[in-house]
Amino acid sequence: MKKIAILGSTGSIGTQTLEIVRDNPDLQVMGLAAGSNAALMEKQIREFHPALAVMWSEEAAKELRGRTADLPVKVLSGMEGLLALASDASYEILVTAIVGMIGIRPTIAAIESGKTIALANKETLVTAGHLIMPLAKKHKVPILPVDSEHSAIFQSMNGEDKKQVSKILLTASGGPFRGRSRQELAGMRAEDALKHPNWSMGRKITVDSASLVNKALEVMEARWLFDVELDSIQVVIHPQSIIHSMVEYVDGAVIAQLGMPDMKLPIQYALFYPERRPMAGERVDFFKLGQITFERPDTEVFTGLKLGMQAARTGGSMPTVFNAANEKAVAMFLNHSIGFLEIPELIEKCMNHHRVIENPNVNEILQAEAETYEYIEHIKEN
Amino acid sequence: MKKIAILGSTGSIGTQTLEIVRDNPDLQVMGLAAGSNAALMEKQIREFHPALAVMWSEEAAKELRGRTADLPVKVLSGMEGLLALASDASYEILVTAIVGMIGIRPTIAAIESGKTIALANKETLVTAGHLIMPLAKKHKVPILPVDSEHSAIFQSMNGEDKKQVSKILLTASGGPFRGRSRQELAGMRAEDALKHPNWSMGRKITVDSASLVNKALEVMEARWLFDVELDSIQVVIHPQSIIHSMVEYVDGAVIAQLGMPDMKLPIQYALFYPERRPMAGERVDFFKLGQITFERPDTEVFTGLKLGMQAARTGGSMPTVFNAANEKAVAMFLNHSIGFLEIPELIEKCMNHHRVIENPNVNEILQAEAETYEYIEHIKEN
Repeated sequence: MKKIAILGSTGSIGTQTLEIVRDNPDLQVMGLAAGSNAALMEKQIREFHPALAVMWSEEAAKELRGRTADLPVKVLSGMEGLLALASDASYEILVTAIVGMIGIRPTIAAIESGKTIALANKETLVTAGHLIMPLAKKHKVPILPVDSEHSAIFQSMNGEDKKQVSKILLTASGGPFRGRSRQELAGMRAEDALKHPNWSMGRKITVDSASLVNKALEVMEARWLFDVELDSIQVVIHPQSIIHSMVEYVDGAVIAQLGMPDMKLPIQYALFYPERRPMAGERVDFFKLGQITFERPDTEVFTGLKLGMQAARTGGSMPTVFNAANEKAVAMFLNHSIGFLEIPELIEKCMNHHRVIENPNVNEILQAEAETYEYIEHIKEN
Repeated sequence: MKKIAILGSTGSIGTQTLEIVRDNPDLQVMGLAAGSNAALMEKQIREFHPALAVMWSEEAAKELRGRTADLPVKVLSGMEGLLALASDASYEILVTAIVGMIGIRPTIAAIESGKTIALANKETLVTAGHLIMPLAKKHKVPILPVDSEHSAIFQSMNGEDKKQVSKILLTASGGPFRGRSRQELAGMRAEDALKHPNWSMGRKITVDSASLVNKALEVMEARWLFDVELDSIQVVIHPQSIIHSMVEYVDGAVIAQLGMPDMKLPIQYALFYPERRPMAGERVDFFKLGQITFERPDTEVFTGLKLGMQAARTGGSMPTVFNAANEKAVAMFLNHSIGFLEIPELIEKCMNHHRVIENPNVNEILQAEAETYEYIEHIKEN
């Protein structure tokens, strides 16, 4: 019996993780945490019987306590609740699928208590990779990637000597706006950005995919996860999303992981690593597929990718600013208060305004985030 | 220092193996064997200083003795020479790059004396896989594939549990006649067949690539090398020869090995396995490449592939007959005595005429080969 807990159980990755638990009776859910969806959390508790449930919102926690009064589940709330779940001794693997920087502290707590981390929260490594990776090494805790690209890279390094890696080829679908001009992008609305050609994901991440900001974040993650130089990571636009990423070795061999676009594969791979388990689902049919294509990303149009690479190269607290500015800008885009091209514009303003802190600690990271949020408010008001 | 010997040192694989030796000073050549090219063998001896050299032809051995009278090399000939080299105690890895069924006995001798086999000789596994694989297992001898497709499969299984393989996707360029009709094939001459779009190889193998007979042989090899059912092996036409083959696992993940078409990679991979060594050469440029394509093989036009799959399914001595008939037919095609479509016609006649022996021993395999040769002579004369 493998015991797990999930941070972000009501989101896209969280619910798919629970589908995998449903199909694998030797997985047991010991704890669940979510933001505010008490109704779905109640359903999950009734099906998966965790001993501990956490709602980020205190109000939602109260609602959940009412809904589950007949059950033996303990309900906590806020960061205190997340930290309690992260360090709870009852399980081995923590799936961190919560969105945003609130994932950092629980991840640190989980590592310090020896949990294997199945990492889906991008912000953790983007903003605090320089803290997380040495900590994981110190506690001998594996950080297993749970997203399609990093799982593909991880799978392509299986059995290989990481020192022989010469390049990581991080693939990107290019999103719904691939091939568009800046003029065309200017007129794009949230509805357009949310039409992702291949992947069904959360709203924020889908906009990040349209702006290519997600690839910048993934490059930053890959750098930490696989301990490679930024210049050894190349983004390759591959619209069919069949090759999920590739690794080139010193002998010129390239190992790739391919598959249908389905997040359940990387989730299951992380849960049972190094074992592969049978999984239902559509297989790649190369005859039906016929062809796959590759393009260079257009960083003159998708300036978010260029800014992200700058932020990564600058390092320190700059990736936090890039990420926080993007988060706010995307929220503003989603509620139609700014246009699509204003997302990178706002990011750039925040980056220009920021004074970089090298090797920031968690407080400094959260401080940089808060200051970026404030600065965006300030720009909006002026 | 890794000590090696090469059967077939003057051929395409043999000379490329020696190029790798030239680039890696910790490789030492202890023995070389070739067919009849004494002049090239002399050069190789002067450069690589093996203690033992074998010429298949007695005449060539005599010539070589004259050419190397000033050197401390011992020169042997014929099967006796090959067997002496195969079981010589001075080295660890035997590269079997000799063409034809004369490779079987030396390979068996090398396995019995505990050598690691870097296998480039197709006939060994095609005709005697049922003997070779259990023997290698018994002597705990690794059989490392030295050709592009099998090396790709092998690399795609690195670090994986072979029991979780659900399918092998063996790629094929489709050769110079891909997309042609039977009518067009009827008019093709040796010069046309020898224009391979991607790979520079020996003449016989290039014709096999044009007829897709090589893929049938590779399916038979893959079956033994990777211990999978024939129905789990799918041939995928991929004209760009960038994906060298793929493996699908039970969770739907597909792992692939890609690279520029260069035989030196699989040779070097086998020589240093499990280590990867830096190797110069062109890298895959996905932006330049732009696209890669996949097609179903046309077994109605390329009937050699269909016949090969039948021979594989029948098993026993039938793959030997398929291979021997093809060998003779290709030789006849190369000297313009038959047309391209007569290659599969002759193979089919030989297969129809043959009475299958189940689990043939080496003598029975060689007997089936001799009978097939005779039968083809008989057909030609009538």
